Amino acid sequence: MKIAICGYGNLGRGIESAVRQNKDMELAGIFTRRAPETVKTCTPDLPVWHIDDILNHKDDIDVLIICGGSATDLPKMTPELAKNFNVLDSFDTHATIPQHFANVDAAAKENGNIALISGGWDPGMFSLNRLYASAILPDGKDYTFWGKGISQGHSDAIRRIEGVVDARQYTIPIQEALDAVRSGSNPELTTGEKHLRECFVVAEDGADLVRIENEIKTMPNYFADYTTIVHFISLEELKRDHGEIPHGGFVIRTGKTGFKGEHNHVIEYSLKLDSNPEFTSSVLVAYARAIYKMHKRGVTGCKTVFDVAPADLSPLSGEELRAHML
Amino acid sequence: MKIAICGYGNLGRGIESAVRQNKDMELAGIFTRRAPETVKTCTPDLPVWHIDDILNHKDDIDVLIICGGSATDLPKMTPELAKNFNVLDSFDTHATIPQHFANVDAAAKENGNIALISGGWDPGMFSLNRLYASAILPDGKDYTFWGKGISQGHSDAIRRIEGVVDARQYTIPIQEALDAVRSGSNPELTTGEKHLRECFVVAEDGADLVRIENEIKTMPNYFADYTTIVHFISLEELKRDHGEIPHGGFVIRTGKTGFKGEHNHVIEYSLKLDSNPEFTSSVLVAYARAIYKMHKRGVTGCKTVFDVAPADLSPLSGEELRAHML
Repeated sequence: MKIAICGYGNLGRGIESAVRQNKDMELAGIFTRRAPETVKTCTPDLPVWHIDDILNHKDDIDVLIICGGSATDLPKMTPELAKNFNVLDSFDTHATIPQHFANVDAAAKENGNIALISGGWDPGMFSLNRLYASAILPDGKDYTFWGKGISQGHSDAIRRIEGVVDARQYTIPIQEALDAVRSGSNPELTTGEKHLRECFVVAEDGADLVRIENEIKTMPNYFADYTTIVHFISLEELKRDHGEIPHGGFVIRTGKTGFKGEHNHVIEYSLKLDSNPEFTSSVLVAYARAIYKMHKRGVTGCKTVFDVAPADLSPLSGEELRAHML
Repeated sequence: MKIAICGYGNLGRGIESAVRQNKDMELAGIFTRRAPETVKTCTPDLPVWHIDDILNHKDDIDVLIICGGSATDLPKMTPELAKNFNVLDSFDTHATIPQHFANVDAAAKENGNIALISGGWDPGMFSLNRLYASAILPDGKDYTFWGKGISQGHSDAIRRIEGVVDARQYTIPIQEALDAVRSGSNPELTTGEKHLRECFVVAEDGADLVRIENEIKTMPNYFADYTTIVHFISLEELKRDHGEIPHGGFVIRTGKTGFKGEHNHVIEYSLKLDSNPEFTSSVLVAYARAIYKMHKRGVTGCKTVFDVAPADLSPLSGEELRAHML
């Protein structure tokens, strides 16, 4: 199975690393918008091509994993590339998933290709667990908590404040809220009641720290509705202690069964990830295997994690899975 | 979608209750080996038929859920009934799953029916989570912990000891073992190092409690390799405090990613169930919906949870799932 990567940032490097862990796959090459000779890959002798040449490599590639941003890259790139390749992306703008799905589905179907959008962990594994749990416990309630982990969007928002050199923002689930959910008491909780935000900020020399802290804590949408903790630290401390991109979270469903609803059940799925992009990549690579297998069986069009039978994710045969994993 | 139940014990009653929570289903009736007029259902006016008459009701039933024991009932009943019905079972004898699958597959395929074996939570949801997690993190290690919950087999084993009136045995995960696994230290743990066994025993008046406790703690396979705690209680206490059938457990996979394996990840799935049979039933009912949908699409033969796309478990359409759950 020959995989290619389109876009070589954190996610692209994660795919490069994840493919090496799967013996039934090899990496054909990387496509980039930059000048190919300026791109340094982590794998020696890995071909790097300009994205304008991508159609010349159609026969070298079974599945193309598109590592672009959801705001502007993927809405254009995924439908366009689905005309000529089996593709995957990690599109995560929840509100426009239906439109993106329709565009990719039309392009893929018309050309006999298969595509999977919104792979990763949320959307992705978290979505799957919401679906499984709600199908099993129809009389119940879902809760999703994110973190502890770096929110790129919130870190960026802090960096835009005057006098800020750099910043990292951790989203942290509130333990009391987690405990209340697990107890089965079905609390009504806002996102702000479920999470707190801890910020590590490097300020310019002589900057007004009180003003910066106040601007962070009162920022609408991003921080105003949350308990927010601000620490000012040095650039050295930021680099030393906050250089990684951890993340994770919890999907919990509580529900009742029995003729009088007398029995409570808690289904919980959680992730604790040292590297958000590398884990997302690992999910995408498993789904690359699945859509490759599905395409071999003649399946075309756009899919999501909801449409993929679990067995297709595994390199093991049905016999092996039943004998060793069931 | 018309569901019928074959076998009316704890699991059959759980199915009866679960079907009521799903608006796209109705219960056609119950088949029993007992005299039908002696069976009291929880649903008023629910038909109860003798199993010998089952072929007379072929047209009344879309999916038949077989609620029998794995030791002797299901190996015979599921292949036999798969000749005439779309069937599900919760066959849980891991060692003979391949043989059972082959028998059911042949019977179902030959007659254009679909079957799903080994539904429930282990095998079932736990198996699914082992599969997903191992496909995502190939360089990792799986751990399954069971409990806290009632083990029927271990409770039965205690009841066979001379002088014992009744007993309940709880399997309990050892917290230190759970913590060690979650830390990513990849410990090697025997089942006995992961679980302890707590027994509540009602003894006959004047029975030799020291002998009974010793017989329990030294019983090969069941208790000898575990830390076992024995409490003697009255029959009233047993009925008052240990009348429920709770269970649950944890499936944890830890794994590494990155070019140097420098990032650790923990994927954890856990269940905390007030009623083991009612939760198992709820899983089976969701899979009944799935095989009904799959059969409508022309799929035949034997399946397991590994072969079912998650979307088929839900009453929602693909559009609704993508818009609200992805």
